[in-house]
Amino acid sequence: MERVTLLAGGVGGARLAHGLDRALRPSSDGTASGGADAAHPLTVVVNVGDDTELHGLWISPDIDTVVYTLAGLNDEDRGWGLRGESYATLEQLARLGEDTWFTLGDKDLATHIVRTARLRGGAPLSRITGEIARSLGVVPRILPVTDDKVATMVDTPAGRLGFQEYFVGHRHADQVLGLHFAGADAARPAPGVAAALTEADLVLVAPSNPFLSIDPILAVPGVRDALTTTGARRVAVSPIVGGAAIKGPAAQILESLGHEVSALGVARLYAGLVDVMCVDERDAHLAAPIADLGFEVLVTDTIMGGPEGRERLARELLA
Amino acid sequence: MERVTLLAGGVGGARLAHGLDRALRPSSDGTASGGADAAHPLTVVVNVGDDTELHGLWISPDIDTVVYTLAGLNDEDRGWGLRGESYATLEQLARLGEDTWFTLGDKDLATHIVRTARLRGGAPLSRITGEIARSLGVVPRILPVTDDKVATMVDTPAGRLGFQEYFVGHRHADQVLGLHFAGADAARPAPGVAAALTEADLVLVAPSNPFLSIDPILAVPGVRDALTTTGARRVAVSPIVGGAAIKGPAAQILESLGHEVSALGVARLYAGLVDVMCVDERDAHLAAPIADLGFEVLVTDTIMGGPEGRERLARELLA
Repeated sequence: MERVTLLAGGVGGARLAHGLDRALRPSSDGTASGGADAAHPLTVVVNVGDDTELHGLWISPDIDTVVYTLAGLNDEDRGWGLRGESYATLEQLARLGEDTWFTLGDKDLATHIVRTARLRGGAPLSRITGEIARSLGVVPRILPVTDDKVATMVDTPAGRLGFQEYFVGHRHADQVLGLHFAGADAARPAPGVAAALTEADLVLVAPSNPFLSIDPILAVPGVRDALTTTGARRVAVSPIVGGAAIKGPAAQILESLGHEVSALGVARLYAGLVDVMCVDERDAHLAAPIADLGFEVLVTDTIMGGPEGRERLARELLA
Repeated sequence: MERVTLLAGGVGGARLAHGLDRALRPSSDGTASGGADAAHPLTVVVNVGDDTELHGLWISPDIDTVVYTLAGLNDEDRGWGLRGESYATLEQLARLGEDTWFTLGDKDLATHIVRTARLRGGAPLSRITGEIARSLGVVPRILPVTDDKVATMVDTPAGRLGFQEYFVGHRHADQVLGLHFAGADAARPAPGVAAALTEADLVLVAPSNPFLSIDPILAVPGVRDALTTTGARRVAVSPIVGGAAIKGPAAQILESLGHEVSALGVARLYAGLVDVMCVDERDAHLAAPIADLGFEVLVTDTIMGGPEGRERLARELLA
C-alpha cells in the first residue's frame, strides 16, 4: 500500500486530509489491504506554531481542525470548531473577568482540558493527539510536527505579535513584515515525523499558508532535510488560486514579503522541496513558467467543496 | 458594627452565610453603617479539605457552594452547583476517555478553569476566591481557611479514601473509622483568617459536618488557638436535629466514631471551643444536659428552609 504523508496547517490541510482519508480507506476504493486494525496509510504532520495558552489551557488550533474534520465533527459553515457548539463556559469565563476574545465552545473546551491535563501529567503532545483522535474515531495518524513548543511570531508595523493575537485578535489585518518561529531551533521532530517523510511513497504539501502553516513545520530541525532527501514523490498544492488565497491572509503576506501573488509565487517558495506543483485550472496559464522552474505541473480543480470534492482532488494527487 | 465570622463547610455553611449576609446588609435592616464601599461585617472561613483535582482542574467544592449561594446562583433543588447548568463539556470529556464520575457543569467549569489558571500563575487561593466572589457580586469576604493544600482522607474498612472518592464516588456509604487531614500540619492560615477570629465580635460555627467540614478548618495550625482565645462570643449550630443529620453523613460518622448521635454528642465535640450551643426545638430536651457541659443553650428552629428562614436564624444568632 502506498504510504502517504501530508504536511498540513488548519482548514486547507484538514480538507485535503479528509479527502485522502476517504480515498485511502479500504471501504472506499477496495484497493487498500488489511482490516480496521491495519495501519492507515495516511500520516498528517501538523503545524503547531499557532498553539497558544488561554485560561491556562493549551490550545492547538491546527491539530484540532484536522482531527475534528477527519472525525466529521467540524463546523463546515464556520470553518473551525465543532458543529452544534454551545458557549456556556465561555460566557461564565467572561463573567469571571476573563478576556474571551478567542471563542471556545463547550465541547471544544473538553479537548483543551484533556490536552492540558495530560501535558501537565508529562505525556507528549504527539501521544495525546493520537489519544484524542482515536477517541473521536479518527483512523489516520495525526502527528504534531514536534512535541516541543514552537510559537509563530508575526512582525508587523505595530511590533511583534503572537500568532493568535495577529490572526484572531487583529483579524490578520496587520501588514506582515516578517515571521519568527520561537523555539524552533531547539525543537525536535515528534516521534514518527522524520520517518513519515523519509519512508513515504508520496509526500503532499497541503494548500495551507506557506508562511504561517508550512514554514513553521519546516523550521523544526530535521524536517526540511527529510523532505529534501526523501525518495518519496513530493507534491504541493497551491493555496493561491487566480491570484487570491482560498482562505486567510496568504495573498497579503506573499505581497508584503515581496513575492508574486500567484501559484507561480508559491512555486518559487517550494523550489527544491517538491517535485510537482498542483495548481488550479484557473492558473493553467502558469503551468509553463512553473515548469520552467523545474517542477512537473498538475492542473486540476483544486477547490475542495464538499467531501466528494476533497476525495476527487485526493484521488488525482494519488494517481 | 458587629464583626461576624462564620466557620463553614458546604451546604449548611452556605445557607447560614446567606442568612447572615441578608441580616447584616444595610438595605436589609438599616442598622449597618456605610455604603456599598464599606467592608461587609461578615467573613466566611471555608473548609478546603474537600478540594480535589479533576481533569487537571482544581475544584474547591465548599468554597464554590458558599460563593454560588451568596451570589444567588446555586441550584437549590440539587443542593450543589449552579442553576440552569448544561453538561456539554462533561459529555465531551467522557467521549475523550475521561472518567466523569464527578459531575461538573459548563458554567461551574469556568470557575475551576479560572481558579486553576490563576493558581498556576502563582496567585494564592484566598486572593482568587475573593476575585471570583466579587465577579459574581458577592459582598461578604470569603476566605479559604488556608492557601496551602489540606486533603481530608477517610479511613474505611476498605482502606484510606480521598474525600471525593468517599463522598461522591462511594456516596459516603463506607463506615468511617477515622479521618486524616493530609498537609494540615504544614499549612498556615490564609491571610486574614486568624484576625477574622481574634478580632470578631461573634464567631459562628455553621451546622456543617463537625468531622468533615469543621475539623479540617481547626486542623490548620493557629486556627483552633484563635478560636479558643478570641474575645468574641462563640456560637455553634448543631447539624444534628432529632438524632439525624440535616444532610450528609454526620450521623453515621458520629456513630461509627463512638459519639452519641444527637445535638448533645455534637456539643461534647465543641466543648471548650464555643460558648453557646444552638439546637433545634426538637432537641429542647437536650438543653439541660448540654448546659451541664458548661454551654449556654439557644433553642430555636434551626432548619433553614428558604432565604427568609436563613435570615431568621441568622438574626436570632446575631441577637
